[in-house]
Amino acid sequence: MNAQNTPALDEFLIQCQQRVEQSLRTVLSQSIPSSKLMEAMRYACLDGGKRIRPVLVYASAQAVDAKSEDADAAAVAVELIHSYSLVHDDLPAMDDDDLRRGKASAHRAFDEATAILVGDALQALAFQCLANQNNSLEPAAKLQMTTLLAEAAGAFGMTGGQSLDLEASGTDIDLSALETLHRLKTGALIKASVKMGAICNPQCSEEQLQALERYAENIGLAFQVQDDILDEISDTATLGKPQGSDRAQAKATYVSLLGLEKAKAKASELANNAAKSLEGFSSSANSLRDLTTYIINRIH
Amino acid sequence: MNAQNTPALDEFLIQCQQRVEQSLRTVLSQSIPSSKLMEAMRYACLDGGKRIRPVLVYASAQAVDAKSEDADAAAVAVELIHSYSLVHDDLPAMDDDDLRRGKASAHRAFDEATAILVGDALQALAFQCLANQNNSLEPAAKLQMTTLLAEAAGAFGMTGGQSLDLEASGTDIDLSALETLHRLKTGALIKASVKMGAICNPQCSEEQLQALERYAENIGLAFQVQDDILDEISDTATLGKPQGSDRAQAKATYVSLLGLEKAKAKASELANNAAKSLEGFSSSANSLRDLTTYIINRIH
Repeated sequence: MNAQNTPALDEFLIQCQQRVEQSLRTVLSQSIPSSKLMEAMRYACLDGGKRIRPVLVYASAQAVDAKSEDADAAAVAVELIHSYSLVHDDLPAMDDDDLRRGKASAHRAFDEATAILVGDALQALAFQCLANQNNSLEPAAKLQMTTLLAEAAGAFGMTGGQSLDLEASGTDIDLSALETLHRLKTGALIKASVKMGAICNPQCSEEQLQALERYAENIGLAFQVQDDILDEISDTATLGKPQGSDRAQAKATYVSLLGLEKAKAKASELANNAAKSLEGFSSSANSLRDLTTYIINRIH
Repeated sequence: MNAQNTPALDEFLIQCQQRVEQSLRTVLSQSIPSSKLMEAMRYACLDGGKRIRPVLVYASAQAVDAKSEDADAAAVAVELIHSYSLVHDDLPAMDDDDLRRGKASAHRAFDEATAILVGDALQALAFQCLANQNNSLEPAAKLQMTTLLAEAAGAFGMTGGQSLDLEASGTDIDLSALETLHRLKTGALIKASVKMGAICNPQCSEEQLQALERYAENIGLAFQVQDDILDEISDTATLGKPQGSDRAQAKATYVSLLGLEKAKAKASELANNAAKSLEGFSSSANSLRDLTTYIINRIH
């Protein structure tokens, strides 16, 4: 939470976080033959994280007057994909991070092989949740969500971005390349979250969907710029991961390319653009609006 | 191919293999921002493998008089999942294999980080192919396939089996534990292949589906027993991976637990059971029938 949030946003965040935590606990309490694997999957997913992506699913569903119940599967699926990506990103062959969400990363708490399998199993579970969701949505809408998430998670989105990130490591990239990288690595999943929320109302118009896409593109980049700012100015305890790790790895960031002040201005501009894209919406989009401020004011 | 195959089976195998190769080439020729990632995905999937799982999808679709066109997406999806699992299984933290399908394994040909991402991207692509398939199937059937594949690929199936396999490494397990492990690690995906083929005909009866499930369970185990036999008696060049690697790693196998002769008898018995489960089918199931012989006569 954050001192600058509106009371309405704080309440909304808590509601969404509790709701997705409950869904995650349900899908991660199923009995499977390898109890060690399930324990590690729970370790990687529960009791941690801001749940920004599920919050965006619910806020977007609310903006188009859809029912929260119809957004539950999308919310849990997108968080499972996000959690798997963190587990794999932390692996020794990738970013080699020992700390995640304030505790040992999965491969440190368990072992490397288990962490690889945890990520693989969480990804499959995300698609299982989406394909098998039990709510009022039509099969075609469920399929559309599944396609969206698969595109956003794989080579056309998040995983493609992660690959670009690895390729960029140790090389000089410019602002345009950095933006492409982040549009994929974090932006694609954020955009999918917002679009899946919108699909929860089958009457959502093409115009509304396009406005929400513009919102998502701006908020996604704003989120990443703020991440780069926090990596520079926050401390390890607040971040829950090592502070300054981007700088230590000589990674190009918005701060390294623009400087701190211009990076802050860029985050504000993107948040303003996000807010503007919602002008055609009623007060139902207030949570999405409040989130633009939340994302650039967050401290971790 | 195998000298003991019927000409009809040889023709069917070639047809299926060409068909899935074409589909794989199509989905893996799409343009993505990280060309290195796509190159590695193609390396891991194309020009190799027996394509047993796609063959089972097509043979099962044929058994219930479904159209091959409606089985294409399932065939390519199941092969993408299988290919991703090989890439991750070969990683240093897992089985640490340098050789796969007669060439360097993905993490040797590229690097470990790329191999992790290749597996992740191939898994997402499998679900993208299933959710976005363009054919005569209803959305509900496509969703059913997606659920089946997600269950078979994740903690409830293949990945769960891989986790049990890691846990069993270096310990003594009995025949029953070995069977559970293989029912998950390889059996689940084989069963999903057969069931997805059956779903290609929406008129497929519950009775037919159950018979096909029994077929798949028996053929899946027969396949694994034969794998263990081949690891013992074949040579590295024929296998395309190091011969005797199970024994070198002191892994429990059907051969180590039963001895070679009893393992061979077990494979034959399972293949016979598979054939028996098809008694209610017409000649449309002949490819499935011929496959029971193929699987225990194959030499790699």
